[in-house]
Amino acid sequence: MVTSPPVRSAPSVLRGEIGEQPDVVARLLERERDRIAKLGRALAKGRPAFVAIAARGSSDNAARYAQYAFGWSCRLPVALAAPSLTTVYGRPPRLRGALVIGISQSGRSPDVVETIARARRDGARTLAIVNDTESPLARTAAELIPLHAGVEKSIAATKTYTAQLTAVALLAASIARNRAALGELDLLPRALAKALESEDSARAAAKDYSSVERAIVIARGFHHATAHEIALKLKELALVPAEPYSAADFQHGPIAMAGSLLHALVVMPPRCAATLELRALVKELRARGSRVRMIGAGVGAVPVPELPEWISPIAAVVPGQWIALHAARARGLDPDRPRGISKITETR
Amino acid sequence: MVTSPPVRSAPSVLRGEIGEQPDVVARLLERERDRIAKLGRALAKGRPAFVAIAARGSSDNAARYAQYAFGWSCRLPVALAAPSLTTVYGRPPRLRGALVIGISQSGRSPDVVETIARARRDGARTLAIVNDTESPLARTAAELIPLHAGVEKSIAATKTYTAQLTAVALLAASIARNRAALGELDLLPRALAKALESEDSARAAAKDYSSVERAIVIARGFHHATAHEIALKLKELALVPAEPYSAADFQHGPIAMAGSLLHALVVMPPRCAATLELRALVKELRARGSRVRMIGAGVGAVPVPELPEWISPIAAVVPGQWIALHAARARGLDPDRPRGISKITETR
Repeated sequence: MVTSPPVRSAPSVLRGEIGEQPDVVARLLERERDRIAKLGRALAKGRPAFVAIAARGSSDNAARYAQYAFGWSCRLPVALAAPSLTTVYGRPPRLRGALVIGISQSGRSPDVVETIARARRDGARTLAIVNDTESPLARTAAELIPLHAGVEKSIAATKTYTAQLTAVALLAASIARNRAALGELDLLPRALAKALESEDSARAAAKDYSSVERAIVIARGFHHATAHEIALKLKELALVPAEPYSAADFQHGPIAMAGSLLHALVVMPPRCAATLELRALVKELRARGSRVRMIGAGVGAVPVPELPEWISPIAAVVPGQWIALHAARARGLDPDRPRGISKITETR
Repeated sequence: MVTSPPVRSAPSVLRGEIGEQPDVVARLLERERDRIAKLGRALAKGRPAFVAIAARGSSDNAARYAQYAFGWSCRLPVALAAPSLTTVYGRPPRLRGALVIGISQSGRSPDVVETIARARRDGARTLAIVNDTESPLARTAAELIPLHAGVEKSIAATKTYTAQLTAVALLAASIARNRAALGELDLLPRALAKALESEDSARAAAKDYSSVERAIVIARGFHHATAHEIALKLKELALVPAEPYSAADFQHGPIAMAGSLLHALVVMPPRCAATLELRALVKELRARGSRVRMIGAGVGAVPVPELPEWISPIAAVVPGQWIALHAARARGLDPDRPRGISKITETR
């Protein structure tokens, strides 16, 4: 287990949970590696044609990561389920031959549970990646990966998000039987502890948001999920209207918005495969008068530890969690009590 | 062919193209119905396990519509491709057994072309839905559905978007061999002409955006695509920072942002299956002090014609196109010259 850095900020439940992440990920790797390896071997034999994932909120961002992790590791295409086809229209897609995964902290979102239940009845292989092992989702899926993250008291998900990504990475590397990749996962607890040390730098960066009118979070490839998750934290905790973008999508229209009122947070960790493209976009944004802050390297950047790119989203979200927490405080908000949202959201 | 309503606004290229939509859709239905029926029969026989779609910008919103159209009509799951897996990481997903569709106005986005080329080499069935039939994308795919929309001069896509949706709807109903649904498509030209009549009402609604700090566009199910496309038009044309949401996703966190600074445009056409849910959300948004404008019914709503829900996104985007055009003018911008974007964006 890895020691957290010394506390230099006011205590809060959220801050505590962000700090738990090295231990949570270490525990998950230790307890689930063998079970997931077995599951991966079974899936590699009776290989699914594709993966379908049902999830909401931060878990949906974990599904975005899964799109890259399964694609990169084992060339499996991933469809993100549109739950309303099942719950609003009563026309669930035919998922026989697919691996259907429900990802949820609570395991209680009715639309996710219903999508998995229906897929299982239709003969698909089903898997729940869930923190609460007593939940309806855990009982509905044929296979279960528990996150072992402990109770998450904060409304905003942090440790369960990084645990979900770790579970997905373990499963993807196990299906691919990629020993080198499986070995790389052991780098995570130390990298997460290192990422926690970005708090001071993130606190300084959070001041950007005291007077921001429009904010975007930009990344490419594997960090598409990171951009979405950081933007969600900025909204939930700091009420900053931050919109996430793939660097490519941003250039197909929304770049029209770039100007002096726009603040861009660009996620570009070391070894990012899209570095040249992101640097060109940063230059373009600055030329249009936008303020740009980097997560990665460069002057004033909030640092992230170096990791193989396929697992770097697990650590690169941490500076974003810190920025959102401190942006909330800078804006006079209590990060432990985000306005008007509850831990379990029951959407159909 | 259907007559457009009388011009009561300053002329512009964009305005002209919005007005062409009833004719464009009528022409596409007339010229492509038989070819697509044949393609649909072939696909119904050798049924693909799933559909994968590569697209960017407005075409990616057409892909979002396809997720519902294929799911609802023929229970086919749809994966939206992550082009960077192919172009940045060199690890394209295995798409053998899938129907792989590239959707593009210009047919020139290298990442979309490359994804289709690779899928075809790997033995997948490939289809291009494209306006420019001389383009690289049209030449790369095994099958082609031309949009017959004529040259689209405006930077902001309008008539090619509704044509793309119509092509997707034709194909989905053809694969399903659903004669009733195929018959319903004939309602479209008249409904689009009717939708054009919402311009006055949309011009009034556009005044909302003269002083908006934060904007969202909300819908559910089939209109997920409509919300994304209207938000994109508001950004491209009027530089309004509008973020699209599924009503369900919005409740998983971002609802924390609801307050007096937030303007919500809610897409809820007649016969919308999620009416009760959307009404409850509208009530909640208003209780939190947000300003809500409807596209659909209700006081001050911008009207949309009644259509079977599965094809209503083809008409319901039109009031949003009008709102974006008039919001641009209200903000002193020229809708024919959106700032700093070009018609063909070459992302890898």
